[in-house]
Amino acid sequence: MRFFSDNAAAACPQVLEALSEANRLDTAYDGDQWSARLDGAFSDLFGKPVRALWVTTGTAANCLGLAALCPPYGAILCHEFAHIEQDEAGAPGFFTGGAKLTLLQGEGAKVSPEAVEEACERVRPDVHQVQPAALSITNATEYGLIYTPEETAALGDFARSHGLGFHLDGARFANAVASTGASPADLSWRAGVDVMSFGFTKNGGMNAEALIFFRTELADEALVLRKRAGHLLSKGRYLAAQILAMLEGDVWLDNARAANAAAGALAKACGSRLVYPVQANELFVRMSAAEAASLKAQGFDFYDWGPNQVRLVTSWDQDLGAVARLAAAIDAL
Amino acid sequence: MRFFSDNAAAACPQVLEALSEANRLDTAYDGDQWSARLDGAFSDLFGKPVRALWVTTGTAANCLGLAALCPPYGAILCHEFAHIEQDEAGAPGFFTGGAKLTLLQGEGAKVSPEAVEEACERVRPDVHQVQPAALSITNATEYGLIYTPEETAALGDFARSHGLGFHLDGARFANAVASTGASPADLSWRAGVDVMSFGFTKNGGMNAEALIFFRTELADEALVLRKRAGHLLSKGRYLAAQILAMLEGDVWLDNARAANAAAGALAKACGSRLVYPVQANELFVRMSAAEAASLKAQGFDFYDWGPNQVRLVTSWDQDLGAVARLAAAIDAL
Amino acid sequence: MRFFSDNAAAACPQVLEALSEANRLDTAYDGDQWSARLDGAFSDLFGKPVRALWVTTGTAANCLGLAALCPPYGAILCHEFAHIEQDEAGAPGFFTGGAKLTLLQGEGAKVSPEAVEEACERVRPDVHQVQPAALSITNATEYGLIYTPEETAALGDFARSHGLGFHLDGARFANAVASTGASPADLSWRAGVDVMSFGFTKNGGMNAEALIFFRTELADEALVLRKRAGHLLSKGRYLAAQILAMLEGDVWLDNARAANAAAGALAKACGSRLVYPVQANELFVRMSAAEAASLKAQGFDFYDWGPNQVRLVTSWDQDLGAVARLAAAIDAL
Amino acid sequence: MRFFSDNAAAACPQVLEALSEANRLDTAYDGDQWSARLDGAFSDLFGKPVRALWVTTGTAANCLGLAALCPPYGAILCHEFAHIEQDEAGAPGFFTGGAKLTLLQGEGAKVSPEAVEEACERVRPDVHQVQPAALSITNATEYGLIYTPEETAALGDFARSHGLGFHLDGARFANAVASTGASPADLSWRAGVDVMSFGFTKNGGMNAEALIFFRTELADEALVLRKRAGHLLSKGRYLAAQILAMLEGDVWLDNARAANAAAGALAKACGSRLVYPVQANELFVRMSAAEAASLKAQGFDFYDWGPNQVRLVTSWDQDLGAVARLAAAIDAL
Repeated sequence: MRFFSDNAAAACPQVLEALSEANRLDTAYDGDQWSARLDGAFSDLFGKPVRALWVTTGTAANCLGLAALCPPYGAILCHEFAHIEQDEAGAPGFFTGGAKLTLLQGEGAKVSPEAVEEACERVRPDVHQVQPAALSITNATEYGLIYTPEETAALGDFARSHGLGFHLDGARFANAVASTGASPADLSWRAGVDVMSFGFTKNGGMNAEALIFFRTELADEALVLRKRAGHLLSKGRYLAAQILAMLEGDVWLDNARAANAAAGALAKACGSRLVYPVQANELFVRMSAAEAASLKAQGFDFYDWGPNQVRLVTSWDQDLGAVARLAAAIDAL
Repeated sequence: MRFFSDNAAAACPQVLEALSEANRLDTAYDGDQWSARLDGAFSDLFGKPVRALWVTTGTAANCLGLAALCPPYGAILCHEFAHIEQDEAGAPGFFTGGAKLTLLQGEGAKVSPEAVEEACERVRPDVHQVQPAALSITNATEYGLIYTPEETAALGDFARSHGLGFHLDGARFANAVASTGASPADLSWRAGVDVMSFGFTKNGGMNAEALIFFRTELADEALVLRKRAGHLLSKGRYLAAQILAMLEGDVWLDNARAANAAAGALAKACGSRLVYPVQANELFVRMSAAEAASLKAQGFDFYDWGPNQVRLVTSWDQDLGAVARLAAAIDAL
Repeated sequence: MRFFSDNAAAACPQVLEALSEANRLDTAYDGDQWSARLDGAFSDLFGKPVRALWVTTGTAANCLGLAALCPPYGAILCHEFAHIEQDEAGAPGFFTGGAKLTLLQGEGAKVSPEAVEEACERVRPDVHQVQPAALSITNATEYGLIYTPEETAALGDFARSHGLGFHLDGARFANAVASTGASPADLSWRAGVDVMSFGFTKNGGMNAEALIFFRTELADEALVLRKRAGHLLSKGRYLAAQILAMLEGDVWLDNARAANAAAGALAKACGSRLVYPVQANELFVRMSAAEAASLKAQGFDFYDWGPNQVRLVTSWDQDLGAVARLAAAIDAL
Repeated sequence: MRFFSDNAAAACPQVLEALSEANRLDTAYDGDQWSARLDGAFSDLFGKPVRALWVTTGTAANCLGLAALCPPYGAILCHEFAHIEQDEAGAPGFFTGGAKLTLLQGEGAKVSPEAVEEACERVRPDVHQVQPAALSITNATEYGLIYTPEETAALGDFARSHGLGFHLDGARFANAVASTGASPADLSWRAGVDVMSFGFTKNGGMNAEALIFFRTELADEALVLRKRAGHLLSKGRYLAAQILAMLEGDVWLDNARAANAAAGALAKACGSRLVYPVQANELFVRMSAAEAASLKAQGFDFYDWGPNQVRLVTSWDQDLGAVARLAAAIDAL
């Protein structure tokens, strides 16, 4: 019974079916009929003309987006626990040609306007110091917390008024939408986001992510960088088809709701063990090594996050029986 | 009736089936059971312990391989029509951190030891000039020609004796093996190749390529660069499974034989129109604009390669009826 | 008796004197009174408001200029014998973050509009190929030839009409001005040049070059890159003072005239041995190995340029007696 | 009366004289007789065979050294107030091709082995996180504190046992040697330092710094990078001559002693106002805005370091009368 990572889950049936349907001859790269529909599909979803590029990983989506916002000699402000800082092997530096990440602190990997402001004020505006060029946040955060539209907009206001590009790592954006009930637009461009990655793989996709440009004039350069970074697949239709299948009928939202619901059920059982409120599909739970070992002995698999802490992640296809059993087992500790 | 590019073809049924079988929960990234089998499968194929990494594009495979052989301040010798020079948007420079491509000439995009030697002799061994660090060839070449094991070994000898790494772009390596009847080993490491990309996508895969290190000590750094370049997919099992499915029962070789055979059938019809001998699955055919237009009017689709020249490419699933009809139509011109 | 390189010559007395005068406390970096005068001094010289940055090498000046004109994913068109291709160790790739040099051919290292046009026409305007972004020429060329204002303007017209930035490597710009009698303006911005390096070191400076932006809006980013590349000296006044000393009273022009005159005197002696007409301070001379050895035995030092060819370079301080002796010795061969 | 920065001071007379003596024809780049003596001179100073390269800035020296120790995908551990983090415009990222600075804390910009260890322990040894590759310290630190040989060796031991390269930013190394009375060897290679920058410019040079490789096998690649970064001056003899002049007769040490002594005299006057003990030539002094303004009104110039804090820096040529007057003025506040 796996609660290790939403990366480990299978792809959802709609994705498999879409791959099968797309399995015929068409134009290579992104010249096919599926890729051609991406801009329109996301423009509909966001209620605004956008440009949308498929890529295969969140790291590529994030870093192509950041490269569009930050020059080689600029700094990207982000939380010290941001995925781009912790888990992308320095890819932001690679894609931007050397940009620096300036790290912010805040509970649950959430960034506040105050933290951004303080960081900006520490920088002398001269050629000796690296000047901030972009702000990046993750929603849902790496600790499963949610930025509301208002919180996002406060950051967006700061970014715009200080000339910073605003990037959103949306590896679990679907979970944030499902959790807040807010519209995709309110959680992104209406709050000032310039470019975002929109995750599908953790949410039931096979290997497709979308990079969305709300500032559409940035997309042409990103197309070049995508190719230059080896991310222009020759049979791109298999990525576009996955994404379209998950957008259709709001599969993406249903999947996220299912994952969130499973997390919610576990949250009740965890009670005061929870390090953070559970707002998406991740739980960080205080637990002694002996307790964790006992759960593992009962067949539950999860990540040992640190001393006396474990991480539980639920997926779109989380078995509800397993969820109930884990909840009971935690209760019984 | 499509003779445009082998990139346009569908994936073969074994690949679709493999994706379906792999569609269950497993460890993320390359920690899954399919990825774990890659090294062994390719070691068997090549008769030597190798390290094998999946990636999604030939550009990524080539450039990760080149980055392992060439420092940022080195030069990669390659043909002026090499894919890495013509069609990868400067990706070799991006992945290596700035390495230069030194361009060689030669018929049909083939590189000769003499051309390599001349290029090396033109370089003064001082800090002012960029020193050659690697040699890269493509087999089958961008013009559908084949390097024999002997030809490859002559280049390999030169490379080794001059301290150059030796890279093979094997986007159509399967076609070269099928065409020569030589073993994969004789066309690669026994001829001195250090690292190669082994193409599957053009040959019936969906979006999987293999990067093979014969100098296995180079693979660990490539793993880091793969992640850093955003090419470590979170559900890598779907790539590994494609590759394993095509290795099993020599699907890769059967597919390439089929594509080569279709090209051979067309070659007969083209006769003296051929710009190069047809040794793999590409044909470059002299043809007036009027003739090309006439063929297109009959429903044949292909690439206008240049003034009075067209390119025909055959795929693993090329319809034999369409091949016969195109042959007849060319004959009738 | 040295005819090896103008890099080998001493600094002229005005430069030494200026260093001595600048040898007092002032503000660090480029905040001093000498640096503050550079923009004005060059604006006067060029008859137009320009921005001028000191750097210590021609490579830095060229590559900071090119980085202002060409993105990491662009191509710089230049002659195959250009200094930026042959003698800067790949620095253009380093400073631009990976830009490619597309090489042109032409007699005496001169670039023609036709060659530029052909190179541009070979590039498909898609994401697979590296798109041209800038044109770079050297005046005087690496073979001592001169572009006239008209020739420069023809290239400038092509560049502007095709959206290419136009860079001039002016390591020996002074020699070109002295040779043509044209104004600095006619040989640069009036002919469409956007940015140029203006060499002083080969012409009697100690270690100072100027980077001139005619498109002044490009200079602010170059200031950042100069610092980032370690080229912002903490006591920059010693560079600015050298340059100002050579601008004052046209020392730069007198020095170049002296070097050109010495070359002219040798040119007469060389007659039909000359590979190219002598228009600046370099001579490429046909000469057998035995002849070259004989001259060296007589105490003349120079560069063996290739089989049966030598290069002679004259400097601002070339001893006229030595010039006469070399002329006589060549005559006597 | 200037206490702003040792960068603002004049060059010492021995340097001017050396430039004058070197002002004659010699071989270009680093082929001259002065450059040829550098390795030997520093090998004598350090009591061990070393390789020494001249460069013009501390940023270039630091970053070429770091590039020799850290791959593009590695991390350099340094203090959060290190010059390479705060004042080099991201140059470490540029020279290394994207390496990351991992920031450590500690009083007075000093790094402790414990801080280094903690930082290393936070890194998971996988491809997702950037792995530490080098440790960099500054002696004297950016706050004027000194590492003793023992403190340096403790860090060197950690570095060696954890496979980290060890870099020393010695912009004010002379001040550290003068302050500790330790030998250059004890403060560098005997304590495990692999490569260091040895500053001359702040200590009475004009524009010359030395990059010293104790691991001499790293120097050849640095020679290439120096050229590639535009830092190979064509008349390098003027840099080498400066350095040799300051090494001869221990001018470098006398200059540093003079600067340290001036700082010591001020330290007495500052008493409990001092934020850190004064161990080299910098003082950080608590002072209200009104007090600072009063001093400035009396003709003293210095840097407002932060709220209620100023920085005083003394130079090799600090006027002792001015020092006495400033000491008295502080006393009188």
